[in-house]
Amino acid sequence: MSVIAIYPGTFDPITNGHIDILERASGLFEKIIVTVANNPSKTPLFTDDERLVMIRESINHIPNTEAVMFSGLVVDFAIKTGAKAIIRGLRALSDFEYEFQMALMNHKLAPEVRTVFLMPNEKYTYLNSSLIRQLAQFNADVTEFVPDCVLQALTQKFGH
Amino acid sequence: MSVIAIYPGTFDPITNGHIDILERASGLFEKIIVTVANNPSKTPLFTDDERLVMIRESINHIPNTEAVMFSGLVVDFAIKTGAKAIIRGLRALSDFEYEFQMALMNHKLAPEVRTVFLMPNEKYTYLNSSLIRQLAQFNADVTEFVPDCVLQALTQKFGH
Amino acid sequence: MSVIAIYPGTFDPITNGHIDILERASGLFEKIIVTVANNPSKTPLFTDDERLVMIRESINHIPNTEAVMFSGLVVDFAIKTGAKAIIRGLRALSDFEYEFQMALMNHKLAPEVRTVFLMPNEKYTYLNSSLIRQLAQFNADVTEFVPDCVLQALTQKFGH
Amino acid sequence: MSVIAIYPGTFDPITNGHIDILERASGLFEKIIVTVANNPSKTPLFTDDERLVMIRESINHIPNTEAVMFSGLVVDFAIKTGAKAIIRGLRALSDFEYEFQMALMNHKLAPEVRTVFLMPNEKYTYLNSSLIRQLAQFNADVTEFVPDCVLQALTQKFGH
Amino acid sequence: MSVIAIYPGTFDPITNGHIDILERASGLFEKIIVTVANNPSKTPLFTDDERLVMIRESINHIPNTEAVMFSGLVVDFAIKTGAKAIIRGLRALSDFEYEFQMALMNHKLAPEVRTVFLMPNEKYTYLNSSLIRQLAQFNADVTEFVPDCVLQALTQKFGH
Amino acid sequence: MSVIAIYPGTFDPITNGHIDILERASGLFEKIIVTVANNPSKTPLFTDDERLVMIRESINHIPNTEAVMFSGLVVDFAIKTGAKAIIRGLRALSDFEYEFQMALMNHKLAPEVRTVFLMPNEKYTYLNSSLIRQLAQFNADVTEFVPDCVLQALTQKFGH
Repeated sequence: MSVIAIYPGTFDPITNGHIDILERASGLFEKIIVTVANNPSKTPLFTDDERLVMIRESINHIPNTEAVMFSGLVVDFAIKTGAKAIIRGLRALSDFEYEFQMALMNHKLAPEVRTVFLMPNEKYTYLNSSLIRQLAQFNADVTEFVPDCVLQALTQKFGH
Repeated sequence: MSVIAIYPGTFDPITNGHIDILERASGLFEKIIVTVANNPSKTPLFTDDERLVMIRESINHIPNTEAVMFSGLVVDFAIKTGAKAIIRGLRALSDFEYEFQMALMNHKLAPEVRTVFLMPNEKYTYLNSSLIRQLAQFNADVTEFVPDCVLQALTQKFGH
Repeated sequence: MSVIAIYPGTFDPITNGHIDILERASGLFEKIIVTVANNPSKTPLFTDDERLVMIRESINHIPNTEAVMFSGLVVDFAIKTGAKAIIRGLRALSDFEYEFQMALMNHKLAPEVRTVFLMPNEKYTYLNSSLIRQLAQFNADVTEFVPDCVLQALTQKFGH
Repeated sequence: MSVIAIYPGTFDPITNGHIDILERASGLFEKIIVTVANNPSKTPLFTDDERLVMIRESINHIPNTEAVMFSGLVVDFAIKTGAKAIIRGLRALSDFEYEFQMALMNHKLAPEVRTVFLMPNEKYTYLNSSLIRQLAQFNADVTEFVPDCVLQALTQKFGH
Repeated sequence: MSVIAIYPGTFDPITNGHIDILERASGLFEKIIVTVANNPSKTPLFTDDERLVMIRESINHIPNTEAVMFSGLVVDFAIKTGAKAIIRGLRALSDFEYEFQMALMNHKLAPEVRTVFLMPNEKYTYLNSSLIRQLAQFNADVTEFVPDCVLQALTQKFGH
Repeated sequence: MSVIAIYPGTFDPITNGHIDILERASGLFEKIIVTVANNPSKTPLFTDDERLVMIRESINHIPNTEAVMFSGLVVDFAIKTGAKAIIRGLRALSDFEYEFQMALMNHKLAPEVRTVFLMPNEKYTYLNSSLIRQLAQFNADVTEFVPDCVLQALTQKFGH
């Protein structure tokens, strides 16, 4: 059985929580495509290119993964690439309803694509990209939560 | 990649919600072993044998599945059979914390085994075996929620 | 429009929270039948008769209400009496999933009967009969939470 | 007993979930007034007129309903029209706290007006207007979730 | 033991819920410093000065409290002032995850500073500053929820 | 300010999560009395004496703590000993409502006693005594979650 999975997100920026999910998924599926949302209506801290470069550098130790930019509906991308699974990290209660809404909707739009939830290490339970941006802005030490290349990019961005 | 997954539970009795989860999982993993808990401290409505027979009859249309009785820790069984994934249905909020507690604990006991959460069809969101037992006891019609063999077993058990 | 509603529960014992819900409902529906669960598998603190007597005394200031014992499925009783609404108090998060499970199941069993949720005064948010029994057992003052007749019955029961 | 109820919302646009709630409420109350929020600080996708026209077309099979625009506090409108009930759909956990906050506040502002919660069919559990707008924007098929006139309006709005 | 605690927030405006928390905390700690967030990226209804003046007037009956403006990370302020506790009100479920995220993050940044949660009176369970601003805008009576000086400031601000 | 706090619980057995809470509390209050529930209606795994001995051994590195057996209402004990604070660990969502119910009720019974919630390290988020008993029964390694003396007692109890 050779299942392709996609792991969609904004990754603004990628955190150690995302990487933990990818490491768990890499042992379960043949290939995992990280699909990075290009959402014109949001203004991310990092550009499309910056986010993609940081992801690729952060995941190159996980052999069966790759990263691409993407805009549109996740299920459309899944169908186009033949992916049978959408991977989502489920960290805390606040994720629950949004993720279930998306999973049910995606199931209606493409029943052959399954949403698969993985839980990160509990030390990442309350971690998300928005918190990282906020902490970095105030010059707090986020070494524990992001890969090196993201740490450098944050330092540069906020000019500390 | 040839991943074996286990799907643990008490299945007292198996419901259409369980079967929906298994159908989703069957497209993602090479083999799925339904492990039926033999818990001496609980008194199930159906005996070990009754539960196992109903499960086998209910899932024989899903080729890459099998069912076995099991007592002890789920991760020990996973390690013994070489399973790399534990499948759990995540239906509603009330499942959330118990499932996360179990997943984190299992991760500590056996980091190489991943807990994979799948969401059933929303029509099974509020369905569980305990509700089925309760409804059947009052002679309510549960045709929509359980396979035929379970329906017959419930009728026999409650003598309606 | 002349709608009959039922308000099911165990009422072991009735609390001011229950009465608050009934007062709210009494302005919305023609008649409200308090249906008191006679559940042979549970051992309530108060007998069927004791509970019924306390309810009747506590609600006799609300003209369009009455109380009866009942065993079986709530929807069966609703259909038999022509009730179109089942009233449920929704106090706190912990009520949420159980109540939704019941409401969905009852909707499937009898689509013509609607479950109507009312919210009690916030001072009753964390009040329930089980807490009252527990507090009374330790001789705590529960005057604020139950009607007079219940207060007396608790004092007698626990012999303080 | 002749109770008038109001069903307030933004309805941008009305969905089958809203209509399901209205159909349930129509059997319980004498008249139901759908009050459509005219909130100058938000920019809805559809104008006041567009929303009102779509609602009226979608609910004209439910005899005891009508729809009006409204700005201000919901309880003020309830008092002015003599409504004794405010109807709210309670779908999922995320609704819970906001709805309870509103219900408690409205109870303080106008104790004679009751908030009545109804639960939609479980297939609408994760449906809301914002999700519909998002899906329609990406050209996803939302036929199952909105009435025909809304489907057409969305197609026109997004020019697919 | 002489413990200094800080009570951070935006206080736009201070409510009776905040004051309730402070009254509870004042019996537990030697001194409580109310730190008022000066967040340049948000536009509060009341200016820094207005908020500070209202807080000082509202808490001058609680002897061991003081109020200061502050920008930056709360833990940095705690360390600078030698505070060993951060006080947070925990009212309802919606506070839970955000507060836990903050508490865990602050613990990582400064392990010697403890986050202490207090629960306000249940009549303030669903109260927050944003609701007060919204109600005042529509000329609803908020006398029960804010101190006198805030009531006057709201009346002036909205020109009723 | 010299505040005595009590930390009530069943402690069957004490875990590293409890100890983490006590270490946090020890820096905030003058003295902390661990009150161990003697609940005749429950049958704990460990006797009163066993639990008390394990607690005392586990907390003797925290100077301002002591442990005593206790039966009855926690607030009665607080009043008798002059304690002004009840300490509770708040780990996860499932604790939330029960703890709030208790805190509100205790506030009504004794307004001068405050309930103070502390959050343990996130690695103890999903840890509780019941899980420990369950895991130990199946011979799982719980070294990471309990102090040495508890580990030995569990081994002896389950005869592995």
